Amino acid sequence: MSQTTLTFDTLTATIREIFLKAGLSPLAAASVATIIAAGERDACKSHGVYRIEGCLRTVKAGKVVPGALPTLEDEGSGVIRVDAANGFSSPAFELGAPVLAERARKLGVAALVINRCTHFSALWPEIETLTAMGVAALAMCPSYAAVAPAGGTKPLLGTNPFAFGWPRPGGDPYVFDFATSVAARGEIELYCQSGQQLPEGWAVDAGGQPTTDPAAALDGAMLPFGDHKGSAISTMVELLAGAMIGDLTSAEALDYLGTTTLAPHHGELILAFSPERFSGSRRGDPFARAEVLFEAIAGQGARLPSQRRFTARRKAMADGITLTSEEMALIERLRSGGLVAVS
Amino acid sequence: MSQTTLTFDTLTATIREIFLKAGLSPLAAASVATIIAAGERDACKSHGVYRIEGCLRTVKAGKVVPGALPTLEDEGSGVIRVDAANGFSSPAFELGAPVLAERARKLGVAALVINRCTHFSALWPEIETLTAMGVAALAMCPSYAAVAPAGGTKPLLGTNPFAFGWPRPGGDPYVFDFATSVAARGEIELYCQSGQQLPEGWAVDAGGQPTTDPAAALDGAMLPFGDHKGSAISTMVELLAGAMIGDLTSAEALDYLGTTTLAPHHGELILAFSPERFSGSRRGDPFARAEVLFEAIAGQGARLPSQRRFTARRKAMADGITLTSEEMALIERLRSGGLVAVS
Repeated sequence: MSQTTLTFDTLTATIREIFLKAGLSPLAAASVATIIAAGERDACKSHGVYRIEGCLRTVKAGKVVPGALPTLEDEGSGVIRVDAANGFSSPAFELGAPVLAERARKLGVAALVINRCTHFSALWPEIETLTAMGVAALAMCPSYAAVAPAGGTKPLLGTNPFAFGWPRPGGDPYVFDFATSVAARGEIELYCQSGQQLPEGWAVDAGGQPTTDPAAALDGAMLPFGDHKGSAISTMVELLAGAMIGDLTSAEALDYLGTTTLAPHHGELILAFSPERFSGSRRGDPFARAEVLFEAIAGQGARLPSQRRFTARRKAMADGITLTSEEMALIERLRSGGLVAVS
Repeated sequence: MSQTTLTFDTLTATIREIFLKAGLSPLAAASVATIIAAGERDACKSHGVYRIEGCLRTVKAGKVVPGALPTLEDEGSGVIRVDAANGFSSPAFELGAPVLAERARKLGVAALVINRCTHFSALWPEIETLTAMGVAALAMCPSYAAVAPAGGTKPLLGTNPFAFGWPRPGGDPYVFDFATSVAARGEIELYCQSGQQLPEGWAVDAGGQPTTDPAAALDGAMLPFGDHKGSAISTMVELLAGAMIGDLTSAEALDYLGTTTLAPHHGELILAFSPERFSGSRRGDPFARAEVLFEAIAGQGARLPSQRRFTARRKAMADGITLTSEEMALIERLRSGGLVAVS
């Protein structure tokens, strides 16, 4: 199989061109393209080039406004709100992030609410933007009803990503970002495409029975990670980043779209914390104290989350990003305005 | 085996008397006693009468100041700080909670930091205090190094409780409160006392090998729930409710105490959210919208967290709290100033 190697910048520019052609604003096209290219750069295939077509399908279906301009609403409280105006989430986040970090530094803790956005990406790009601004951050959002609550049998909760970051001055941040389902939906879709069976414990079929068939899983319900504990966290995400922020829960997002083949429309909640403000003058530098913890984790042979991503990133930035001939053909088809697959 | 049935108020008063005799301030004695009695009332044996002796041991060891008076520091920002002055956590929480709820209503989101406290209880009593004030709340704290990070073999993280609550006007709140280990340490101690083997997957022995022997587990390391995801959340608790708030991590708490038989000394972080402030004028009443979610969970036969507790509570408030003859003998021994077991 022939392969093509591109620089991160070239891949980003190529994807940006596709989104400009699809009617995205220059800001949105650049933002969405950068996040998808970052997925490839970090070897997160389920959030890489594979996502382009899903975004384009969502534009064609009229479920996202490609040229939407986000607006920021700020009363000076601990809650900053960005209305994505039915556009993609990433330009809305970029508008709100600096205000969020500034407010966290002023008040200690602050929240960014993004409303009416189409969310297509992982949360770690947003978390990393905030840790680079020197604040710790916790982000969460619904997706669409695909996961049964613990003890249940029907899709109700989303795969609801939950992500956290802590700045590590001079190094890669501490970042985790995971689905509150056992697996991310994108992973099951990749199993489905490749014809592989799922590991046990990931899903139930439409009858509520355990299954390892990825197609049956997509027709049935995925399961939460960590049984009732993960189910509880996922429910918390529906409450805080759905009902509380006045935006769609995962069940409502699925009703709105009518399909799981489009990028979901809902809101997002991001909390930011200023470690300096929280620690005050107590017990020394919180960042230095955190390093003691990280060293103790690594010192017993355990891995910090995201290390695989950071390693892939360094390699990609040095050696380029390698795409398969199928991935290049997909990009070429979309770039030349070719048909977008319906599902 | 003979049993004794007491009212909640009688049990609370009986435990309060023990703590007053041990030198706790009237405020602290009432607060600690109420929380322990609430554990029995809610059929949480691992946080009930069983905890009294651990609290007294911690007093006798000089690791908690029984008559400490907490002080509140408030600059009007999003972070309210209570210095527990090396006393128990619960009177410090009671001092800070109304200010936290008021600040959340004003700013949308606010945080209560409790520093220098001895923590002996579950987090749900605090969560329920806040939901009764009409705010949603998220609480977390370290404990002491007892859990190996995912992929590791040595105790480093605490069992780090993580709890959340959402007010349900007119009914019991939505509340979850769980250890970020597979099991709470108190559960393993109860297995140890009763001579039962642990379920598989709860712990490793001192050599890092899986074990079902509760004594070997207490000598070795417990495991995080949900593998690397639970391990990541537990690490987040160490960062936010340890390093960030200028208080002890679980490893530092164990160093400070030198034993796991005393109640741990560290800090605590509680976030509060005003659903009305977050929702603004969008999409209707957030509480009503949350009820739709709860009904959908219960409607497919899944259980909301804490339902078992609320059912036990209603029964105990109607029929009284039943203690075994051993539990009554323990209470009598401690009430008459009898010896406190060393471990």
